[in-house]
Amino acid sequence: MDLSEKDIQPQLTRRRPGQSKLSTPRDEKDRVEIQSGTENGKTLGTPIGMLVRNEDHRPHDYSETDLYPRPSHADYTYLEKYGTKASSGGGRASARETIGRVAAAGIAEKFLTLVNGVEIVAFTTQIGLVKMDRDLTTGEFHQLLDTITREQVDACGPVRCPDASVRDLMTKEIERYRDANDSIGGIVTCVIRNLPTGLGEPCFDKLEAMLAHAMLSIPASKGFEIGSGFSGVSVPGSQHNDTFYLDTSAGRLRTRTNNSGGTQGGISNGENIYFSVAFKSAATISQEQKTATYDGKDGILATRGRHDPSVTPRAVPIVEAMAALVCADALLMQKSREFAASIVAK
Amino acid sequence: MDLSEKDIQPQLTRRRPGQSKLSTPRDEKDRVEIQSGTENGKTLGTPIGMLVRNEDHRPHDYSETDLYPRPSHADYTYLEKYGTKASSGGGRASARETIGRVAAAGIAEKFLTLVNGVEIVAFTTQIGLVKMDRDLTTGEFHQLLDTITREQVDACGPVRCPDASVRDLMTKEIERYRDANDSIGGIVTCVIRNLPTGLGEPCFDKLEAMLAHAMLSIPASKGFEIGSGFSGVSVPGSQHNDTFYLDTSAGRLRTRTNNSGGTQGGISNGENIYFSVAFKSAATISQEQKTATYDGKDGILATRGRHDPSVTPRAVPIVEAMAALVCADALLMQKSREFAASIVAK
Amino acid sequence: MDLSEKDIQPQLTRRRPGQSKLSTPRDEKDRVEIQSGTENGKTLGTPIGMLVRNEDHRPHDYSETDLYPRPSHADYTYLEKYGTKASSGGGRASARETIGRVAAAGIAEKFLTLVNGVEIVAFTTQIGLVKMDRDLTTGEFHQLLDTITREQVDACGPVRCPDASVRDLMTKEIERYRDANDSIGGIVTCVIRNLPTGLGEPCFDKLEAMLAHAMLSIPASKGFEIGSGFSGVSVPGSQHNDTFYLDTSAGRLRTRTNNSGGTQGGISNGENIYFSVAFKSAATISQEQKTATYDGKDGILATRGRHDPSVTPRAVPIVEAMAALVCADALLMQKSREFAASIVAK
Amino acid sequence: MDLSEKDIQPQLTRRRPGQSKLSTPRDEKDRVEIQSGTENGKTLGTPIGMLVRNEDHRPHDYSETDLYPRPSHADYTYLEKYGTKASSGGGRASARETIGRVAAAGIAEKFLTLVNGVEIVAFTTQIGLVKMDRDLTTGEFHQLLDTITREQVDACGPVRCPDASVRDLMTKEIERYRDANDSIGGIVTCVIRNLPTGLGEPCFDKLEAMLAHAMLSIPASKGFEIGSGFSGVSVPGSQHNDTFYLDTSAGRLRTRTNNSGGTQGGISNGENIYFSVAFKSAATISQEQKTATYDGKDGILATRGRHDPSVTPRAVPIVEAMAALVCADALLMQKSREFAASIVAK
Repeated sequence: MDLSEKDIQPQLTRRRPGQSKLSTPRDEKDRVEIQSGTENGKTLGTPIGMLVRNEDHRPHDYSETDLYPRPSHADYTYLEKYGTKASSGGGRASARETIGRVAAAGIAEKFLTLVNGVEIVAFTTQIGLVKMDRDLTTGEFHQLLDTITREQVDACGPVRCPDASVRDLMTKEIERYRDANDSIGGIVTCVIRNLPTGLGEPCFDKLEAMLAHAMLSIPASKGFEIGSGFSGVSVPGSQHNDTFYLDTSAGRLRTRTNNSGGTQGGISNGENIYFSVAFKSAATISQEQKTATYDGKDGILATRGRHDPSVTPRAVPIVEAMAALVCADALLMQKSREFAASIVAK
Repeated sequence: MDLSEKDIQPQLTRRRPGQSKLSTPRDEKDRVEIQSGTENGKTLGTPIGMLVRNEDHRPHDYSETDLYPRPSHADYTYLEKYGTKASSGGGRASARETIGRVAAAGIAEKFLTLVNGVEIVAFTTQIGLVKMDRDLTTGEFHQLLDTITREQVDACGPVRCPDASVRDLMTKEIERYRDANDSIGGIVTCVIRNLPTGLGEPCFDKLEAMLAHAMLSIPASKGFEIGSGFSGVSVPGSQHNDTFYLDTSAGRLRTRTNNSGGTQGGISNGENIYFSVAFKSAATISQEQKTATYDGKDGILATRGRHDPSVTPRAVPIVEAMAALVCADALLMQKSREFAASIVAK
Repeated sequence: MDLSEKDIQPQLTRRRPGQSKLSTPRDEKDRVEIQSGTENGKTLGTPIGMLVRNEDHRPHDYSETDLYPRPSHADYTYLEKYGTKASSGGGRASARETIGRVAAAGIAEKFLTLVNGVEIVAFTTQIGLVKMDRDLTTGEFHQLLDTITREQVDACGPVRCPDASVRDLMTKEIERYRDANDSIGGIVTCVIRNLPTGLGEPCFDKLEAMLAHAMLSIPASKGFEIGSGFSGVSVPGSQHNDTFYLDTSAGRLRTRTNNSGGTQGGISNGENIYFSVAFKSAATISQEQKTATYDGKDGILATRGRHDPSVTPRAVPIVEAMAALVCADALLMQKSREFAASIVAK
Repeated sequence: MDLSEKDIQPQLTRRRPGQSKLSTPRDEKDRVEIQSGTENGKTLGTPIGMLVRNEDHRPHDYSETDLYPRPSHADYTYLEKYGTKASSGGGRASARETIGRVAAAGIAEKFLTLVNGVEIVAFTTQIGLVKMDRDLTTGEFHQLLDTITREQVDACGPVRCPDASVRDLMTKEIERYRDANDSIGGIVTCVIRNLPTGLGEPCFDKLEAMLAHAMLSIPASKGFEIGSGFSGVSVPGSQHNDTFYLDTSAGRLRTRTNNSGGTQGGISNGENIYFSVAFKSAATISQEQKTATYDGKDGILATRGRHDPSVTPRAVPIVEAMAALVCADALLMQKSREFAASIVAK
């Protein structure tokens, strides 16, 4: 297929730090270069190598962490796991690694778009205690899922929340914690539209299982829910069940409601897939913390460095990226099966 | 290692239907027989085959579903995926398949116990709108996580909620929906104790990512959260961070709080792992439902058959089983690495 | 697709012991029963379970092996690997396990036939020192590869060699070793016809690499060669290279010669795939052998039991089975890619 | 473990072109740089990135291949597989890709050495019709396998054959084909010493199956045999069987002969692993070849460029590399199992 840096750069740019006062002042250009696998703007079928250079790297910022494992960061567990300590900031657990996910997803997304016009749009639905209304029993939220675009999300400003009534409160929430050298968490909701039916593999690789795996692999994520999720547990089956009707224009059965979130039995049913991901407050804060050194001595850690008061808005393109990678995998698995079926049905 | 049916049967028995008035009246003995891989009560190292026979199978109960895809069940999506329709009840999406997970986990659990005294205990924390207090800022819930046993959970009665103050309300909630031919969802919380540090593989196979994958593969699950989860998003970093202190008796660093839920950077830190799983109300209800046939004709489906008004209490051993399988995998991966490190360190 | 025991039984029957005086007198019916995954003779898309029962099992035949690890059998290495010893004959290293491969391959083969009329035929080309002419520079052998069928192979008698000039010598060779309570090895050659172009995955999963893996996993196999193989090393590039011409009837390029054996760069080129597999003389012989006990005491082992003087003829359907499994995997991988390409090319 | 470029460079240097008049005059320095995963000369446990730059790349040499698919090269099959044609020479099927295998194996080898003093040495045993004596029934060849070192192999001159009686004939054989703008194949034999017992995974990942897979993935390889291999098929079981004796110095059973090549039932038995790999004559020759264009027109292809008259001597470090990668994988799998067993045996 056609592929150039233009297909990949936009999401990298949306992910990169230094975009607003709400995020870390680190300024990385994050320019992607395709190194192999394409020629004359076409993919060759062979592996595609991409390179993004670090341009604003200041490792000395992290020097105090030679003594202290940062609370709720991976310093201690990496030491326990590997028996060795990297001097660089945070090592491989740094969210900087997500750049590779977003780059790879640029390819997956282009493929999904070409195959079926798949659209994946994520946005912030909660920052700290400020929530956007996600009440599924109203039609409003479902309508938003039907139509929201990335352009609209970005037009909402740096918090990436499409709900004008809470957006400013969210911004203030982040600013408040930023000014206190603190951090705050949030929730990102994501919708996948136009995904073909039949995606997801019983029993262990249900579509939501693969999505949950992907989302919980994003740094700082603590939870995942699909469809009605945690709040749906109190809705009785008689209301929760998504009953069918014939959509004559689509020529197939559809469901009147979509409490399931677009899958049944772990397989996509043609409705919108939507899910939410919880992100905790970032572990690295500039406030002093009473903690202990690697050697077990009590002390005060004041982490220097440039840190995000809220990773949630920047997680938006990462959530989209992981969703695209899961969908592309699931699509290839299912289409291979459909090919097989189509042949033997002759 | 030593292995016999006695190691595997107890959890199968906890999982099986027909145990109380709260679950389906299907009565299956679910006796496991080890077919291969052991001799004289010892494992041989070769694959272990186990067999559990269906004894109370009434396929005719499901006959009406020849016409109707059951709402929020997998009938429609299996047809879309495979292009064919199985006449048997629910086919492979039936929760009956979880019997294999629970049987396999019996082996994994025995291994985990032998290795490090790992303990895995799940219990019901919500049925419908009735919730047990899971406030992490109080010490009470954490203390419960430290000590709760399966025996205590079972002693709580069929809802499997260790909180005496809500248990009866939960039972009534289930009975209410049962009597209305309806169903209701719930939440299962699970704690893993004594898991060694260092488990979980960066970047994509973080321990919580593998747990989320495993939990979302259980039929009817809609959400997963670890540690502070969704409610933790509103806790600022300065409070959420788990600071360190030296535990002189353990001879290693521990954390004062455990909002992380026992992992940092996706790797176990030696604290309790705890997480919750949301289960929707069961899709199969005996109430009449206005829906459509496979052919797209509007109609009324009244599903016969024997169904659970709430799958949540029976999900308890399944959640434990999936947790055990994930932990055993992660343990073997890490111990292989530790072996490698120990050799080259000589 | 349509699937019943009739699709699977024939190769199991060809594989089973007790078919002639040349093989072990163990008489196993090896009847396959499909247990799951089909309904009304159609596959459901879900996993297909099959069962073949042991009917003529005499474990006491193997009792002497409690003391002695059988030379060149897996008794010693299984003990070293697993630290435990199974009392049953040979345990999991017994060629009896190949029944599962042959059963699974029945499904793969049916699929390959439906997709592209793929034909897989193996036959004996050497027993001990008696060889069938496999000179690739003559057209004769290539013509045989073009046309040989399983029916023709079986019509050749129990040695399964299609060359009438050596078949009787082969039979005598086997009888000679059988009468001496000894065993002898041989070579099986296999041809795959009508395999589509484009199968095999660079760099590590070249088609011949996957075939070699599969063949060397068959008990008693010691070598694999594709195309000109070992004898081709002395043919200079100017003769060995398979030059192209346009096959106007096929509408595509073909090669004048096929020294490559149907792949280039690890990818099928549309010519016949052909390869040979070396099988050593069976390790289990009734002759007395001077060897040592597990405890290291010198002694004489006289293995009782019913053993094949030459496993080679019975390996014929096993080689075909493994070839079918590899081809079906490679086909699904490539067809998934072709699907992807077809979509984005629109 | 300690790791620097010094551990990796030597085999890259042995692999690189331009070392003698017998190989291609392309002169690449092939300097490896470690980019990530180590610090202060120690591995961190995280992925190790390495970079080797192309320095003498002349893509225009390959321009004629725009019209012609090179016979017995991968041009045609890559086009069939991917539906697209790369202008660069040979694309991903170029043996240049093996540089990555050799670099990775540098790490694997260091690990194997530290774990058990594993030694892997390969050497040329045949060029064209000139063979070194590999008669297994004599003790001489086995003695060579016991002692041969890489230093001795390299001291043998560019053909890398340790047998002084045939080495010059081999050199002449290569020169003869080089002067005729032709190419010739050969055989590389490899021995692995000091590999622990118990490596290799039943049934499908037998050690020899994984080795065969690895070797057949090397460009231009056409065959693999372990132990007695193809010539062993004519040795009766009574002679072929490797009987046991107690090696009092080793404190364990060993075999008097080693026709098996160091594995039984696919599992290492502590004896030397040895195997041979057949390499065909290189496909790219400067001689004119009558063939057809991509469009099917008959024509004459005269490939320019710098090509090896025999890839066999340069394949020596590649065979060693793939052997090291397989052994390291198998070792980690088995040691994880041994860890598990050691724990539960307490």
